[in-house]
Amino acid sequence: MPDGKRALEMHAKRKGKIEVVGSVSMRTKEELSEYYTPGVAQVSLAINKDRAKAYDYTMKGRMAAILTDGTRILGLGDIGPEAGMPVMEGKALLLKKLGGVDAIPVCLDTKDEAQILRIAKALEPNFAAMNIEDIETPKCLNIVERLSKEMGIPIFHDDRNGVAVVTLAALTNALKLAGKKLRSARIVVNGAGAAGIGIAELLVKAGAERICLCDTSGILYKGRAVNMNLWKVRIAAATNREMMKGTLSDAVKGADVLIGASVEGAFTAAMIRSMAKKPVAFSLANPYPEMDYQEMLSAGAFIAATGRSDRPNQVNNLLAFPGIMAGLIESRASRVDGLMLVRSAEAIARFSARGMRRDRIIADPIGKNTVLGLAPKVAAAVAESALELGIARSRKSPNEVELSVSKAIKRYSKIERVTSR
Amino acid sequence: MPDGKRALEMHAKRKGKIEVVGSVSMRTKEELSEYYTPGVAQVSLAINKDRAKAYDYTMKGRMAAILTDGTRILGLGDIGPEAGMPVMEGKALLLKKLGGVDAIPVCLDTKDEAQILRIAKALEPNFAAMNIEDIETPKCLNIVERLSKEMGIPIFHDDRNGVAVVTLAALTNALKLAGKKLRSARIVVNGAGAAGIGIAELLVKAGAERICLCDTSGILYKGRAVNMNLWKVRIAAATNREMMKGTLSDAVKGADVLIGASVEGAFTAAMIRSMAKKPVAFSLANPYPEMDYQEMLSAGAFIAATGRSDRPNQVNNLLAFPGIMAGLIESRASRVDGLMLVRSAEAIARFSARGMRRDRIIADPIGKNTVLGLAPKVAAAVAESALELGIARSRKSPNEVELSVSKAIKRYSKIERVTSR
Repeated sequence: MPDGKRALEMHAKRKGKIEVVGSVSMRTKEELSEYYTPGVAQVSLAINKDRAKAYDYTMKGRMAAILTDGTRILGLGDIGPEAGMPVMEGKALLLKKLGGVDAIPVCLDTKDEAQILRIAKALEPNFAAMNIEDIETPKCLNIVERLSKEMGIPIFHDDRNGVAVVTLAALTNALKLAGKKLRSARIVVNGAGAAGIGIAELLVKAGAERICLCDTSGILYKGRAVNMNLWKVRIAAATNREMMKGTLSDAVKGADVLIGASVEGAFTAAMIRSMAKKPVAFSLANPYPEMDYQEMLSAGAFIAATGRSDRPNQVNNLLAFPGIMAGLIESRASRVDGLMLVRSAEAIARFSARGMRRDRIIADPIGKNTVLGLAPKVAAAVAESALELGIARSRKSPNEVELSVSKAIKRYSKIERVTSR
Repeated sequence: MPDGKRALEMHAKRKGKIEVVGSVSMRTKEELSEYYTPGVAQVSLAINKDRAKAYDYTMKGRMAAILTDGTRILGLGDIGPEAGMPVMEGKALLLKKLGGVDAIPVCLDTKDEAQILRIAKALEPNFAAMNIEDIETPKCLNIVERLSKEMGIPIFHDDRNGVAVVTLAALTNALKLAGKKLRSARIVVNGAGAAGIGIAELLVKAGAERICLCDTSGILYKGRAVNMNLWKVRIAAATNREMMKGTLSDAVKGADVLIGASVEGAFTAAMIRSMAKKPVAFSLANPYPEMDYQEMLSAGAFIAATGRSDRPNQVNNLLAFPGIMAGLIESRASRVDGLMLVRSAEAIARFSARGMRRDRIIADPIGKNTVLGLAPKVAAAVAESALELGIARSRKSPNEVELSVSKAIKRYSKIERVTSR
């Protein structure tokens, strides 16, 4: 763990990491009079006549909000909206670099659910999409559900959707190497927060039929009385058809896949040893996994993965969110749908399949090929699903979306050279 | 008046006019691990320990909000937040180009005063300053007053403060040419909205002793019963010591200065003719002035000015707001004070005094010298006042502020070349 001096210096250099610039030039009298008064009045009137034109003529057509209340920043907990800002700025920078998406942090100085809902809705004129980020569970789940129903723009929940997409992509490739099928594999997900629930629901959507979730009270099942909330009730009903009961250890016995979205040290060698042949084990707790990569392998895991960049097989949502957000924005999707997430995972799995090995089931999130090539593919997958579902409000084909995102990423690499100088 | 086709095309090219980019590079594993996880956690923890550090390590140290509810966009009235966006984006672009300031539009889908207050306050962790823009009167005045009291960042009100600063600057130079003194000149301001009130209160602050305001009900005086609000009551008490009553025409008779912040056609040749010798007449209604520039001269005005770019002597708040916002942010001022505005006006008047003539009392807002040189001077004037008032939270000297703003503007001219390509 670094002492942070270097990070502090790097953050102080420019006061954070992002800035706002013009995307057009304002050098001549003519530009001033078209982009500002009096010409701008005609643009305002055109939008006043047809609000949907805001997508064509204003930043609403390209801008995403990264919304947090600072209650669950990284693994640090409720450290406040100001302290959450460096993380949100990092996210905005990565959205631009990896997805060509313009994004701005919105760190709210209120923890009140109703107030957060009101503010997010009042901000709708500014954004094409929102990413709800690092808000405590289950508040974040409630907020995303309400906003998805009550707003006309897609609400993405990276902690739930992004992690799930990359996990599904990695699992797809891992199961291929292990010679197993997602449908029939017995899968245990440990952790029933936003990430665990997101992973379980996406696996169900992708066709997995033998999943169960565990939390600190053991296996989740329909009708369990202790330590429940609305979200656990729902996911319990959608999983665990066998109505297993007991502890995490009970659940893991004979399982093909164990996925942790919980806390450091939650898995033991005995658990891995009790699994079926060629077990797959993902320890995704950040920054300290449920079990170290090497220890999982030593305990007999056929394939292991963690969230860490200093180990092989890093399950990093960097692989998912830039492309998904780009696709949502380019297709002007009205909402996020599970199909988009499944297709995104497929795109990531395909992209990662070249040169696949047990210790390389998923692409390097900042490898040069990934930076330039992955997000356009993911965006195209999202756009295709949006068209299929009839929720795309742009007429762009998936190919056009892919090209457009690819161009935006290349354009930004030129801008980065100047702004970072 | 153009038909707007060109403006629409220009706005569609990039979907609006501003974009978000990284101010630092994110190319290596090291950069990723310092700017994002795990390094960013140390930055978050440092801010959690001392919230003021958000100014050093995050965009809060450089970012301004441009906040509107869309109820009074340009001269177009209540056309809604989406339709207000092109104007706010234009403002953001001009803040960057002319003041080196990062700004982002916040167009709110609510007109409720209490709700706007709550949202603005919840957004405080994101911003070093706010500009309240194009909200209907008197709601905007209430909002600015409340936010100034209840928030820890300066709340600038361009419609009131920016216009006033440039008007005072232009009037300073006009009176010099006319050989009159601000203190003793009799001044009539027509219009008691945000602009008229702002102009009158700033003239008082600058030392003018013989001012009166008029609105559609005639001269404002202490104790007037009809057509009043809290703001008119206050400004009536601070002006019109002579307790004049009657119509605008009554007020103008024998006056040295007539300033319009009202509506097209409000002034007549007879009014100008009834004024004292060497009368100064400013018709600032936008886009159509109270009286045309040439007509004011023909009626006998010694010096005339309007808000129009196609006439001499354009009183344009472009000359004020970028430098003022830059100064507020660089000095980390806790609030906006009248002294800052007076000093800003002095800086603009001084800057404009070179080569001054009756048809050139104020600098060209987008002349090359102005673009590079004015805002740094205005920012320094603001910083100096902030230090004097003891409300600066940065230790930068006025000279350092001037240099820093100057560098930011030059840096942006390089960025503009790439982003506008």
